[in-house]
Amino acid sequence: MPRIALGIEYDGSSFAGWQSQVDACGVQSVVEKGLSVVANHPVEVVAAGRTDAGVHAAMQVVHFDTTADRTERAWMLGAVSNMPKEVSVLWAREVPEGFHARYSALARRYRYVILNRVPRPALNAQRAAWVREYLDDKRMNEAAQHLVGEHDFSSFRAAQCQARTPMRHLHEISVTRHGELVVLTVCANAFLHHMVRNIAGVLIAIGTGERPADWTAQVLGYKDRKLGGVTAVPNGLYLAGIRYAPALKLPSEPEFSVLAPTEAGSSRVP
Amino acid sequence: MPRIALGIEYDGSSFAGWQSQVDACGVQSVVEKGLSVVANHPVEVVAAGRTDAGVHAAMQVVHFDTTADRTERAWMLGAVSNMPKEVSVLWAREVPEGFHARYSALARRYRYVILNRVPRPALNAQRAAWVREYLDDKRMNEAAQHLVGEHDFSSFRAAQCQARTPMRHLHEISVTRHGELVVLTVCANAFLHHMVRNIAGVLIAIGTGERPADWTAQVLGYKDRKLGGVTAVPNGLYLAGIRYAPALKLPSEPEFSVLAPTEAGSSRVP
Repeated sequence: MPRIALGIEYDGSSFAGWQSQVDACGVQSVVEKGLSVVANHPVEVVAAGRTDAGVHAAMQVVHFDTTADRTERAWMLGAVSNMPKEVSVLWAREVPEGFHARYSALARRYRYVILNRVPRPALNAQRAAWVREYLDDKRMNEAAQHLVGEHDFSSFRAAQCQARTPMRHLHEISVTRHGELVVLTVCANAFLHHMVRNIAGVLIAIGTGERPADWTAQVLGYKDRKLGGVTAVPNGLYLAGIRYAPALKLPSEPEFSVLAPTEAGSSRVP
Repeated sequence: MPRIALGIEYDGSSFAGWQSQVDACGVQSVVEKGLSVVANHPVEVVAAGRTDAGVHAAMQVVHFDTTADRTERAWMLGAVSNMPKEVSVLWAREVPEGFHARYSALARRYRYVILNRVPRPALNAQRAAWVREYLDDKRMNEAAQHLVGEHDFSSFRAAQCQARTPMRHLHEISVTRHGELVVLTVCANAFLHHMVRNIAGVLIAIGTGERPADWTAQVLGYKDRKLGGVTAVPNGLYLAGIRYAPALKLPSEPEFSVLAPTEAGSSRVP
């Protein structure tokens, strides 16, 4: 039975998250509905990572099994034409039967986007976090480097996190400014529940000067969520890419389209 | 009676356009409602430019007269707290009584944003036009230069346009690529109805190769809308800035935040 992998993009604003809730629709269910129409049988998908309500994906990867014989192009175009406009299919590939969207993933990349200006966002209301106080992005970037490596991330882990272990290997982290936008990029083998939003919360407090630059290292050392920072809002968060073995040749780390200024240097409101 | 100017940002997706329609709310009415609460009397605003349904503004400028005595900060914060999340106030300034948001404007800048890729947009569904065929942005940029200068823009003017004359002075136009996004920027003394969307329609046809590179010059010469291109969809269009006399010191050409890739060079779906 063929196993198919799909790359999916979505705007999480209007969804309950990846999984459906009792009272609200998840992205998973609209993806499954779209694929079931194309397959002509019920389809269940497994995702590389679950995203919370309001969190977006520039690249989510899922896999499913099917008895239907369709071209990759037919899966892509057929599924997307049966999905709401907030969800799109970027690619479809037949994969070996041993492939698993979640367990075969070698690393995940997330981005957290902050609109850093005095006026409230309108154009980016659902697509970025908002911080009024000036963020020192260089200070945030330096502070973030303490997190690189294999660590116990208990201080950055939501109480309801179901992972077996709080140990994660963080490969890369950076904070960069693009005009009014401050973008946090994190790549790790895997993430704990709320881990990126909790890292963002700590770095924002460092960026505004509310906390010292070595606070990331301190919080990491506490291994206690109660001594960490606030959990930053979900709508700044994007699942940005999943890395698999190169031999699979999946286009799983896309060009990342996110809100960014196309011009810099001109002044904003004082 | 003090006259106040405001800089406004809005996501046009959920509005009938700047002006209200019989059956749908315009941005103007929510701005007037927000200001009326702060002023404690009914406020009417005049905008620099009217935008159609689905068109966004990174910077719209309005003015209004009021008997209320408020600080610029109170106008800005008070108004925004009485508006829906799709509208924000970027700045407020008291202006001379001779100031007129529309008639004092020396030039307007618009941007038209196209997502140029095979998969349908999801994250940018409401925020960019979508063209599947590869666009040759350099060819588009060269073709666009024929429009610079004082011309009769009848071929780019909607039938329902109410302007006295089809003559407009186009100061600057450029087409640039930012990864998957192709961005058209146009600055002119003023614009005819649908003028930017009609220019975008012609340039897209040149970019895909459907029309020759000198088609802009040809269409301009026809002075006949029926011989022009299609009107590109509204949701790629942004009112991006209004220029006034520098002595007024209005922050009316903001840093322009729009959807743009923060990384380039990685591959997309074939």
